[in-house]
Amino acid sequence: MDLSRLCIHTITTKPWPIETALERFSARGVAGMTVWRDALEGRDIAAAGRRIRDAGMAVVSLCRGGFFPAETAAARQEAIDDNRRAVEEAAALGAPLVVLVCGAVPGQPLDVSRGQIRDGIEAVLPDAQAAGVRLGIEPLHPMYADSRSAINTMAQANDMAEAIGSPFAGVVVDVYHLWWDPDLEAEIGRCGRMGKLFAFHVCDWRTPTEDLLLDRGLMGEGCIDIPQIRGWVEEAGFDGYNEVEIFSERYWAIEQEQFLGRIIEAYTTYS
Amino acid sequence: MDLSRLCIHTITTKPWPIETALERFSARGVAGMTVWRDALEGRDIAAAGRRIRDAGMAVVSLCRGGFFPAETAAARQEAIDDNRRAVEEAAALGAPLVVLVCGAVPGQPLDVSRGQIRDGIEAVLPDAQAAGVRLGIEPLHPMYADSRSAINTMAQANDMAEAIGSPFAGVVVDVYHLWWDPDLEAEIGRCGRMGKLFAFHVCDWRTPTEDLLLDRGLMGEGCIDIPQIRGWVEEAGFDGYNEVEIFSERYWAIEQEQFLGRIIEAYTTYS
Repeated sequence: MDLSRLCIHTITTKPWPIETALERFSARGVAGMTVWRDALEGRDIAAAGRRIRDAGMAVVSLCRGGFFPAETAAARQEAIDDNRRAVEEAAALGAPLVVLVCGAVPGQPLDVSRGQIRDGIEAVLPDAQAAGVRLGIEPLHPMYADSRSAINTMAQANDMAEAIGSPFAGVVVDVYHLWWDPDLEAEIGRCGRMGKLFAFHVCDWRTPTEDLLLDRGLMGEGCIDIPQIRGWVEEAGFDGYNEVEIFSERYWAIEQEQFLGRIIEAYTTYS
Repeated sequence: MDLSRLCIHTITTKPWPIETALERFSARGVAGMTVWRDALEGRDIAAAGRRIRDAGMAVVSLCRGGFFPAETAAARQEAIDDNRRAVEEAAALGAPLVVLVCGAVPGQPLDVSRGQIRDGIEAVLPDAQAAGVRLGIEPLHPMYADSRSAINTMAQANDMAEAIGSPFAGVVVDVYHLWWDPDLEAEIGRCGRMGKLFAFHVCDWRTPTEDLLLDRGLMGEGCIDIPQIRGWVEEAGFDGYNEVEIFSERYWAIEQEQFLGRIIEAYTTYS
C-alpha cells in the first residue's frame, strides 16, 4: 500500500486538533499534511511545522488565502493584508504553498471580481517571493461563483496565472471543482507546460449531493474518475502529493480514527 | 407594464393545475405559457393547447424531453421513444419547441453520455421535423453534470447543435445554469449567428443557495445580472419570450396568487 504521495488536509478530519491529526496520520504512514489556518489558532506556528516534520510528514500547503474581491478599497486592502499574514504563516510553518480560494461578492460583476483577484495576487506576490512561498489559484466549481470564487474553470486559472507571469503564481487542481469540464484534460496539459501545476486535491462528487458545501464524498463514492484526472495531472509533469480534502458533515460526525481508515482504503483503491 | 414577452412555466406555480394557471396567468396579462408534461397528465392535450390560446396566451414550449444517456441500449431506446412521445405531445399542444434536459448517468464518462445525447437527438429529429417541432438543447449548470445533463456550457450546446446541423436542433439559454461562464456573451453571440437561439429562461441565483435543485430565486433576489444577459440574447437576434422558470420549495409553499404577483413585479423590475 503506497502512501508515499498521500496528503490529508486538517479540515478533512476537522474534529481532531492538529496535534491529534498529525499523530494519527503519521501512525498510519500518511506522507503529508496540508494545514488549514483554523487548525493553527493559538499555536506556535513554527513549532507546529516542526512537529509535523518530526512526525515524518511533509507540510504540503497552507489553506487558505484569497477572498480578494470586496466592495470597498479598505476591505480589499484588509484582504491583501490577511494574505500577507497567510504567506508569513506558511513561511513559519514551512509550507511551500498558500492555496487561494479567490473570492467573489454576490451581485458584483464577475469580471470586476476577477480584476480585484488579479490585483490582490499581484499585491501579495512580492511578499510571497521574498518568503519563498508560492500562491496557488484554485478554480472553484461554478456553484461557488456567487460568493466564494469568480475563478471557476481551469482555463480561467491558467489564464490568470499566465497573465501574472511569476514562477510564484500557479494553479491548484481539485477534482471536485473541475471534473465536469470538457476542456479539463487540455487545460491541465497547458498548466503543466507552463510549469504552473502546483497541487492536486481529491475527493468525490456524491449523487445526490445534499449540501452545496459540506457533502463531499470519499474517493470511489461518487462519479468522478479520479485515476483518469490523476493520469492527466501526472502526464502534465506533476509529481507532488495527492491531497485528500473532504468537507463532510456526515464524516465529521463519525469516529475519526475509523474515518481515517476509510480514507486510506479509498485512497489506495480509487485514487 | 409590458408583459407582452412574459412567459411562465407551469412548474413555477406547481401547486396550481394547468387550468388554474392559465386562468390566473391570463387574468394578469401574461403573454405565454410553457407547459411541463406533468401538468398535462390525464388531460386531452390538444384541448389544453386550445384553452391556452383561447385565454389569449401563446404556448411557448413543452418541458421536457431529453435524458438520453443510459447504461443499456434498451434503456436508451426507451428514452428515444419517450422523446418521440414528447414531440407528438408538443405537436398536439401546439408548442413549437421541446426543451431537452439532455441527461447523464452517474459514473458513466461524460464523453460517453455526450455521444448518447447526440445519438438520441438525431434519432428523434426526423419526427421533430415532420411534426414541425424544434428541439432545444438546454445546457445545465455543472452541478447537474452527475445525473441531469452532460451538456454544461453554452459552448458545448452550440457545438452539439452545430454538429447536428439541422434547423430543428438549437439551444435554450437559462441564466441560472450559465450566468457564471466567462464565455457566455461570446457563445450567445455565436448561437445567434447560427440561428439556433430557441428560448430564454430567467430566474435568479440566491446566496446562499440551500438546495441544489429547489431553491431558485425570483429575479432580483440573487446575483445574476439578468438585464445584461437578456441584452446579449437580444443582440443575438432573439425576440421570443422571457420565460420565468422557478423551482422553489419556499415559493411553492406560499399562496400562488400572491407568488404570481411577485413574479410579475420581479419580472418588470429586474428582468
